[in-house]
Amino acid sequence: MHPFTKYHPESVAALGEEALIGRIRRWLGPVSPRAPFGIGDDCAVLPGARGRQLLTVDPVVYGRHFDDSIPARAVGTKLLKRNLSDLAAMGGRPSAAVIALSLDPRTSLRWVEGFYCGLAAVARRHGVPVVGGDITQAEGVIVAGLTLLGAAAGPRVLTRTGARIGDLIYVTGRLGGSLRSGHHWKFTPRLAEGAWLADRPEVRAMMDVSDGLAKDLPALAPAGTVPVLDRALPRRAGCDLRAALTDGEDYELVFTAAGGAAAIALERAWRKKFPRVRLTRIGRFARALPPGAPNLADYHGYEHLR
Amino acid sequence: MHPFTKYHPESVAALGEEALIGRIRRWLGPVSPRAPFGIGDDCAVLPGARGRQLLTVDPVVYGRHFDDSIPARAVGTKLLKRNLSDLAAMGGRPSAAVIALSLDPRTSLRWVEGFYCGLAAVARRHGVPVVGGDITQAEGVIVAGLTLLGAAAGPRVLTRTGARIGDLIYVTGRLGGSLRSGHHWKFTPRLAEGAWLADRPEVRAMMDVSDGLAKDLPALAPAGTVPVLDRALPRRAGCDLRAALTDGEDYELVFTAAGGAAAIALERAWRKKFPRVRLTRIGRFARALPPGAPNLADYHGYEHLR
Repeated sequence: MHPFTKYHPESVAALGEEALIGRIRRWLGPVSPRAPFGIGDDCAVLPGARGRQLLTVDPVVYGRHFDDSIPARAVGTKLLKRNLSDLAAMGGRPSAAVIALSLDPRTSLRWVEGFYCGLAAVARRHGVPVVGGDITQAEGVIVAGLTLLGAAAGPRVLTRTGARIGDLIYVTGRLGGSLRSGHHWKFTPRLAEGAWLADRPEVRAMMDVSDGLAKDLPALAPAGTVPVLDRALPRRAGCDLRAALTDGEDYELVFTAAGGAAAIALERAWRKKFPRVRLTRIGRFARALPPGAPNLADYHGYEHLR
Repeated sequence: MHPFTKYHPESVAALGEEALIGRIRRWLGPVSPRAPFGIGDDCAVLPGARGRQLLTVDPVVYGRHFDDSIPARAVGTKLLKRNLSDLAAMGGRPSAAVIALSLDPRTSLRWVEGFYCGLAAVARRHGVPVVGGDITQAEGVIVAGLTLLGAAAGPRVLTRTGARIGDLIYVTGRLGGSLRSGHHWKFTPRLAEGAWLADRPEVRAMMDVSDGLAKDLPALAPAGTVPVLDRALPRRAGCDLRAALTDGEDYELVFTAAGGAAAIALERAWRKKFPRVRLTRIGRFARALPPGAPNLADYHGYEHLR
């Protein structure tokens, strides 16, 4: 859906900020708590947190993360799900979200309604209260930044460090072709899987694949090692190796785990717990790249600002 | 400072995202904790929080909150201070910040360096770790959104509700002329004052003045009352009543307190605690507007998106 309108009465400018905020609270519905626990005061008041907390921020930008080809609802769902995927990557669960929206004054109310209704549907499904935000005018753009506060779902937070030489590398789902297939907004963030993995001691490091495996995976490699992809990658239909490594926006989990009996137990337990989510062992960390294995440095993952 | 450059080697695009993030960590210096407690993992890991927490988000947008007339450093300081002012308005203190930056690829590195160095200086002064963020390309704009997590400085969080009929209305500092005087980026967020006020039981409701007193103050009025401004407003030099009521970006605290002996004690204690910060009683809440008192509805405060 094209987000701008030439017909002033249908634009956010015609409504003005205060009335728009009223509508947003209605569109958000039950995920918008009353002030001061939600929209309407200088800050949102949140309860204390016993264990460790997690904080992440990710935006969607018109022309970059979405365009006219996807519904406004999908933009809202994508924004929240991208951030949920970051939480999932550490074994977290969401506590609260705030949204900073910069809108061209010609943005149509219908587009904004779709955006918030889509976002609210995901927020309801995952129990994320949307507790605040800000709306500002910015000519010619739509930038929506969502900050997500969360907490460790269990006793352990799984970070990008901790992998050891010889660890096996696993990935959930399939890689590549995210834009073409609509996966970039249709995906389901791997929250249950991430929390479960953080509870397994044989799992040692984890992240989500958002900029393409070739760019992301080196962040998990222990010092002095390289990732060796010695098994077939789970690719989306129509994707070659390059697409699977570099397309980006996969929003899958990649993690490392101890090998041997622990790995067999992990794979068996996964199949029982998540029978419908594919888990693939794709490689291991080694001191040097064996001949014939793909060198990730030859595949350029997505880099912003270039 | 003009933020864009025509000379590609001086632009953020020439550097690319990864190298830019490395520089940002250097510019932030000691306020950038190591991953996973800071920049570098999918989320930042934060400690638990015993008491109630506060969450707020506010952006700065090129052409709206800043232009070429102010230094890049001032943009960074303004961004963090705006959010600190929101925390101050509830009697909070900061815990952590994340920044979502949307940049035109022609943005000059010098501008971005100034922005982060200015922000880091304020973060150091107030002990705010900058724990994460995101950088995205967006043509033709600079939008920087900062989300601030905080906690109640004392046992009480002061909200916008709680004022009673007959309450006196106070404001800190002076109002009006913020843009002209540079106050909009030179101001000091009233954190110490806000925390102190939240600890005084005679203080009943508080907010910060950011969109102009005429627009903001009605949010504190108890149902069935109007704010009666029956005393002179503390105005910045060269400002008339309209400017003081509507200019916006004052970043002062406005609060209500019980009258009588409590008010006298409050004013005396304030002068002792904050001898250099002006506190002015500007009015009270009443059932009806007496003849001659300014009607705030006649003054149009700043409204976004119009």
